[in-house]
Amino acid sequence: MNQVICTVDVVLLTLKENALQVALLKREREPFRGTLALPGGYIHADEDGDARDAALRVLRDKTGIEVPYLEQLATFSGMVRDPRGWSVSITFYALVSTEVIEKANHPGVVMTAVDRKVKLPFDHRTIIDTAVARLRGKSQYSSLPCYLVGETFTLPQLQRVYEALMGESLNKVSFRRKIAEMDVLEPLEGQFQEAGAHRPAQLYRLKPEWREHLMLLERGL
Amino acid sequence: MNQVICTVDVVLLTLKENALQVALLKREREPFRGTLALPGGYIHADEDGDARDAALRVLRDKTGIEVPYLEQLATFSGMVRDPRGWSVSITFYALVSTEVIEKANHPGVVMTAVDRKVKLPFDHRTIIDTAVARLRGKSQYSSLPCYLVGETFTLPQLQRVYEALMGESLNKVSFRRKIAEMDVLEPLEGQFQEAGAHRPAQLYRLKPEWREHLMLLERGL
Repeated sequence: MNQVICTVDVVLLTLKENALQVALLKREREPFRGTLALPGGYIHADEDGDARDAALRVLRDKTGIEVPYLEQLATFSGMVRDPRGWSVSITFYALVSTEVIEKANHPGVVMTAVDRKVKLPFDHRTIIDTAVARLRGKSQYSSLPCYLVGETFTLPQLQRVYEALMGESLNKVSFRRKIAEMDVLEPLEGQFQEAGAHRPAQLYRLKPEWREHLMLLERGL
Repeated sequence: MNQVICTVDVVLLTLKENALQVALLKREREPFRGTLALPGGYIHADEDGDARDAALRVLRDKTGIEVPYLEQLATFSGMVRDPRGWSVSITFYALVSTEVIEKANHPGVVMTAVDRKVKLPFDHRTIIDTAVARLRGKSQYSSLPCYLVGETFTLPQLQRVYEALMGESLNKVSFRRKIAEMDVLEPLEGQFQEAGAHRPAQLYRLKPEWREHLMLLERGL
């Protein structure tokens, strides 16, 4: 009755030198053994509470990373996407700073530019493109980009992350108004970052209650 | 290895007297036999090209309706949502006018207010709430509500649909500017609707190229 292969795949993104990168791993098994692909795997019905649990397990096992924020992206399915048979991939995406990737330093993880023309198996190219489009779209009206910027950061650093994702320059005053409206940041008392010729910039971090939840605004940047 | 139940469920919505209604059907089999539930069913790996095909098949078989626009909503999954075992439901939502429901007049379909406190099996209440939230959010910046208004309609009728979904009154001038900006409608030449004391209102319909695709605006209403 039900010969469907059920898997999860995760698009783990980071921003390095203003370019989005995605975590890929060489596949250890057929099909497409030896090819770079998204971290993914079968749902383990005996241990995963739900698909999100499965995605978190896959990320932990394959990249050594525990993500604070993971969002369901979409489900890709069909007769032809996997040579093994009719398959479902419930996909998720997660954002981390490059520090997190470097600290985990997990063997086999290859950070690759999202627009690099690496040939990917299954429909993983479409899955990555879908995640990037979601991230860019949602950056306009949410705190999502804050997950890419590291644990502590200055407002100019955060603005550059928003600009990189949205692909446009933002007005400093209206950017700061939006950030204040979101009310997701707290200053680190007495902690500043030297900024060359400019005066030192206040360091901020996400308030604890916003480290695992997204703030959405009705009107975007 | 893979004891996961794979199903699709569809939230078919319409707007009647300014209230959203969802199509429910009495379940013919266990579990929850005799209870009203969303139209849904197993993926048929031998005939469905993908999950979307499965959803269209389920809708056709269980409601007699062919929908022009169907969108993936989210995937609900886990150990406990279905007493039969670990299950995945890839969910979709579709919008039709009441005319379409009445014309299909399919036996067993019960149109029910979305906020009515009918006890529903599985996580179908959550699925419906998710669909309604998506529809309301997306109404702000898309042509989505046009699927609820019938084949031909006047601009005041369309505005009332947007207002019902967004739960607020809209300014007539800015509403018409947004609709013009979307550029998804065409007037029916020489066809007007009597409007009581007002002068007759021009009738419109969706341009053919927008009957199956959504127009999204960057800035909402």
